[in-house]
This record gives sequence, structure tokens and C-alpha cells, in this order.
Amino acid sequence: MTQEKRESLRIRYEHELFERVLPFWLRHSPDPINGGHFNNLDHNGTIYDTTKHIWMQARLVWMFSKLYRVVEPREDWLNAAQSGMDFLKNHTIRPDGRVFFSVTSDGHPIYQQRKIFTECFYALALSEFGNAIDRASYIKEAILMVEKIWEWADDGTLIGRPALDGDQPSQPLAVPMMLLNLLDEVKTDIDCSSEIDECFQRIKLHVHGRHTFEYVSTQGKQLQGPNGRLVNPGHVIEAGWFIQHMAHRTNNNTMIEMGRKMIRDAQSNGWDKTFGGLYYFYDAEGFSPVQLEWSMKLWWPHCEALYAHLLNYAYTSNLDDFQSFHLTDDYIFRHFVDSKYGEWFGYCDQLGQITHRFKGGPYKGCYHVPRSLLLCWQLLQDWPNQKF
Amino acid sequence: MTQEKRESLRIRYEHELFERVLPFWLRHSPDPINGGHFNNLDHNGTIYDTTKHIWMQARLVWMFSKLYRVVEPREDWLNAAQSGMDFLKNHTIRPDGRVFFSVTSDGHPIYQQRKIFTECFYALALSEFGNAIDRASYIKEAILMVEKIWEWADDGTLIGRPALDGDQPSQPLAVPMMLLNLLDEVKTDIDCSSEIDECFQRIKLHVHGRHTFEYVSTQGKQLQGPNGRLVNPGHVIEAGWFIQHMAHRTNNNTMIEMGRKMIRDAQSNGWDKTFGGLYYFYDAEGFSPVQLEWSMKLWWPHCEALYAHLLNYAYTSNLDDFQSFHLTDDYIFRHFVDSKYGEWFGYCDQLGQITHRFKGGPYKGCYHVPRSLLLCWQLLQDWPNQKF
Repeated sequence: MTQEKRESLRIRYEHELFERVLPFWLRHSPDPINGGHFNNLDHNGTIYDTTKHIWMQARLVWMFSKLYRVVEPREDWLNAAQSGMDFLKNHTIRPDGRVFFSVTSDGHPIYQQRKIFTECFYALALSEFGNAIDRASYIKEAILMVEKIWEWADDGTLIGRPALDGDQPSQPLAVPMMLLNLLDEVKTDIDCSSEIDECFQRIKLHVHGRHTFEYVSTQGKQLQGPNGRLVNPGHVIEAGWFIQHMAHRTNNNTMIEMGRKMIRDAQSNGWDKTFGGLYYFYDAEGFSPVQLEWSMKLWWPHCEALYAHLLNYAYTSNLDDFQSFHLTDDYIFRHFVDSKYGEWFGYCDQLGQITHRFKGGPYKGCYHVPRSLLLCWQLLQDWPNQKF
Repeated sequence: MTQEKRESLRIRYEHELFERVLPFWLRHSPDPINGGHFNNLDHNGTIYDTTKHIWMQARLVWMFSKLYRVVEPREDWLNAAQSGMDFLKNHTIRPDGRVFFSVTSDGHPIYQQRKIFTECFYALALSEFGNAIDRASYIKEAILMVEKIWEWADDGTLIGRPALDGDQPSQPLAVPMMLLNLLDEVKTDIDCSSEIDECFQRIKLHVHGRHTFEYVSTQGKQLQGPNGRLVNPGHVIEAGWFIQHMAHRTNNNTMIEMGRKMIRDAQSNGWDKTFGGLYYFYDAEGFSPVQLEWSMKLWWPHCEALYAHLLNYAYTSNLDDFQSFHLTDDYIFRHFVDSKYGEWFGYCDQLGQITHRFKGGPYKGCYHVPRSLLLCWQLLQDWPNQKF
């Protein structure tokens, strides 16, 4: 890629991020009455549900804190982060450290998941907000939460769910990749090299030849049935760059190579050769996955792929990586980008028709789009030597 | 509809049911080693997952027992029902009466739902199998189970899930319609008129003008947010004929009228005017439902609609009902019917392209297709005076 091409990409992403995506959230999501942010926003920013989904609340805090710290100390970004952080601390955490999945606009709890991810995003918010305002107490709290999450994660994926004897003990890819991301984000003076290595090894258990399975046995064996053949290409690609970031920091070339290969294989197996776009799921033996949405094209796998292919290309100059990046960029700007109201649409059917008009929902917030654009923008700027 | 047209329809459905649908299950589903039936069958009958999903196991028992009793005492049908019933009794019920959602092929429990539906289908299987072989002990067991289900249903939808104070107490339409179906199927000498009336009244709480909401408050008020605007047209249409069957038995003309209107409104609001087919969900105010699969066209709402419109037409001679029936029949035979291997495909995208090639899955078994064909076939035969 020529310097000129990089610069034109950088400008395009800069415009998309700072003029089209972030303003959408700053304008439409703040709750002027109770503080914090609404996340269920229609195509034009109309609030269609006042429920606050805490994954989204915490991710928005993380995002604006990060922008404040690494791009520019803008007051509106800090205010957005502060308001979300206050809402999180005041309304969403239980005395035992668990965090509600969703609450009403004024903070009454609606739902508690049996998974650990809400707590993970809460810890990310604490940590990055603490970094942004340089306040150690937030970071300390984040570290304590990561320690609890580490214990809960050992109990399996569903906290409090009794094991039944026909159930194959399994590990979802989401858990070790999330833990790795936490270790990368929540910086501590304590030596975490054994935990980092455990994450690497647990992710490696999922890699079976050219497929990285979403679920494997706790020893890394393939499970029987559809769950054992299931691949979520977006997850694999996201894990692929999580691994590379941490492996660059720890000078682990084997893991850098594994991360690169995971991304390339998931792209090659998960890309729809007929209609374009990454499948949400595929079955490694070609059966139809039982998930009704398997053939849909979601925004977030494409966000992850955009950065992951660019990262692979930046460090290897492999033209296949550039081609994958180009395909992804083209798919995104033809399908997800909304030139009218900003932010991106989130969901297309297999053929690429938009199926859901909203910009924010229970699982779509101010996160994958701006994170991907920011990472690409930074990489294009520091080419090819970003700081990990 | 002329007698000639009815007869040609009857013959077409008879062929589809007895030559194309039932043989698929009789040929591919039996487990010769452990007894019972596999339900995860690919397009051509190949088993792609040996997990036995108990909704499907119990529904198959119900279906073949019903056929044995009301159509013809065929030995292969009885054997299919008996094998499934034995598997259910030996492997799926806990001492407290709760029933596992899924078990391994040899009967080890995999998953327990927090909903009451597995128990409901188990009770249907017990009752109809008892009727088929004229054995009172099965029916008695079914009645005891219905009594337990009645108590559990009062505890809300998720057994054992603690209520949180921001959660709006709500009632899903699925519960009173399922209870009504149980009261219709599990015959008892005890007078159930107050329970029947309670089901009618609880369903009525969901009917708000031209929309029958999937969730309402326990007092029938519309809930805030997307759940409060959600309509599942297939559920409404199924409830519409459940109501009419029971209302015919109890000579309740008001409820017959309500059932008819629910079906007509759900058809009119839930039918995709551009690409045809019933949406899986719609939002009464036109927002995009948050369910990823909302715009898909599933086989079962069309099965329910086929019979429901024919029922409406048989008793009212209203030409709109005939037109809806005709649209549904046409959609089904153009999209779901598989002339090669038998049974029907289950899932299409909004445009009508098949998204999943399997014939049986965790939620698709030997039930909606043969039940609908049987009901239509019987109605066309006894026109317009079937026994309810």
C-alpha cells in the first residue's frame, strides 16, 4: 500500500469516526434526567426503548475514556464517560461484585445474566476511565473485579447452573479471549505472565487445523454435534488481533503467527463467496447451523475483520491480507455505513439487505464501530509500528 | 368452495401427509439402539446430531398416538409412539415431575429449561398415548402433570428465576394458550370450566385492538419497550384456533368470535405484502424488532395459518378467509414442501430463500406439519361439521 493510499484511507476513517459515528452517540444517547446513556436508538437516533443494557453502557464509557486519553482530551468525551461511569457505579453493581445485565432508565435492575461478560465490560470501563482521569482508585477496583472474574470463569460459562451428567463439559472461545483482552487492557504491576500464557493456551485448544471452534472440551477435544462443529468467524478474527496485541507486548512470535493464521483461515472459510460478507456462524462440516441467524451478515465481525486484516498486512505485507482488508472495507461501506444519520446499520440478511433499521440495540452500542475505526486510524498513522 | 375443490384439496393433503411427511419420520427418526427417536435430521434424513430434544420426542409420541386413534390403528404408528413413550418415561422425567429439555441418545440429561413447555408436551404425549391404547394409568399421570404445570405456571415464566424490581411482571401469550391446549387435549371427568374460562380471560388480556401482544402485564396492560409492542403472528393464529376448538365444545360464541378475529388481524398485520409469507415477529409501531430472526418466514406459523384460515372459512364462508387460506397454501407449497425427500423445510429468509436445509432440529420435529395436514384433511372431510 502506498503512503498516498494509506493517507487517503486514514482521512476517510477519520471522517467516519469523528464526524459520522461519535457525534451520533454524543447527540442521541445521553440521558439528561438520570445520567448515563440510552443505547436503544433507532436509525435517526430516536429512543425506542429506555432500558439501559449494561454491556453497552460500560463499552461506551470505555470508548470515550480511550478517545480522551489517546486522541485528545476533549471535554465532551470526558463528560460522556463520566456520566456513564457514575451511572454504572450508582445503579448496576451488586454487593457481591456481580453486575446487572440491564436496568431501567432510572437504574432499577431488570435482568441478571448467568455469564461473566457484563462484569468484564464493567472492569474495562473502570480501568480505562481510571487511566483517562489518572485516578488509581478506579484501576484498583478494576483489578479486583478481574480477579473475581477469573474465579467465576473457572466455574464454567454459566454461573450457578448445575452440571447435568449428559452435558459435555465445554469451553466457549469467548471466555479466554475476553480474559486475554482484560489482561491487555487492565494494566497492573503484578506479573501476569502465567495468566497471559494460560489464555494463549486455552485459545489454542480451539484451533483445529483450519477451523477455530467456538466450543471445545475443557481438554481441547472436538465436541459431538452441531456445537462441536460451530465456528463464529467474527469471534475468531477478534481473538486473532487480541492475541497479536498481547504477543507483541510479550515478544511471543509463535502466538503472533497463530493469531495471523486464525484471522486468515476464518476469513477464507467464513466469507460468503456468492453474496459477500462474513457469515455470523458456519458449520465446519457444511451442515446448516441450528442458529436461525447463522447466514446473516452482522456489522461487528466486519469491524473486527477490517482492523485484523490491516494489522496482518501492516506487519507481513502479504497481499492476500490486503485483499481481505479491501473486500471488508468495500462490504462495510456498501452495506453498513449510513450516510444520512451516521453510525452504521448492524444487521443484513445473507444477500446484504438491511434487516434491522436501528443503530443501537441490546447488543449494538458505541463500541465495535468506533474501536475498529480508531485502531485502523492509529495503525495507518503509525505504520507499521504502532504501540501495543 | 365447491365440493370438487374440497375433494381435490383433501386428496393433495392426504398424499402430502401419508406419503411424504409421515414416512420421512418413520424411516429416519427411530433409534434402533436406545429406543425413542432422533429429531435432528438433515434434508435427506441423515442424523446430524444425536441429542434428543424432548419437546420433539413428546410431540412425535402425541402425533403418532393421535393418528393411531383417529385415522387408523396402524401397527407402525403404534410402535413409533410406544418407543418414544418408553424412552420418555425411562430417561427424561425427574422425581419432582420436571422433565429435561434435552438428553443424550442413551438418555443422560443435557439441559433443563426454566420454562414449563417440556412438561406440557410430556403431558400431551402421556394423554394421547393413553387414549390410543386405552390405558387409564397414562391419562391419570397426564392429569397429575397438568395439575403441577398449573401451579408452576402461576410462578411466572421462568421457574426459579428471582424477580428483580425493575422487571415489569409480564405474561407471555404462550402460557395461557398452552394451558388451554392442555385442557382441550387431556380429558378428565373433573369439571374444568373455571380453568378454561381463566385461560380465555388470560388470552383476552393480550388482545389490544388489532394487535395481540406476545407479552402484557399480568393485568393486561401494554408493557413499555419492544417487548410490549411485539407480536408473534404464528402464536396468535395458533391461539385463535385453540380458542375456537374449546369454545365450540363449551358453546362460547363470544370466544369463537374472538378467536376468528385474532386470526384475521394477525394475518392482515403479519403478512409480508412485498415478498409474501408471515413474519416471525413484528413491532406494532413499526420499529424493527430486536430479534435477529424477526423477518424470517418459518414453517410453523404457516402450518397454523393453513388450518386456522380453513377453519374460519368453513364456519363463516367469508371469502377473505378463503383468500388467506389460498395465499398460505400457495406460499407453503412454493417454499417449504420438499418434493425430493419429503417433510418440509423449516426456515426461509424474508425473500423466501431457504436458509436451513435440515428437516428436523431442536425446535422442528414431527408435529406442526402433520398436525396441520391432519386437521385440514379432517375438516375437508367432515365439512363444515367436525368434532371438536
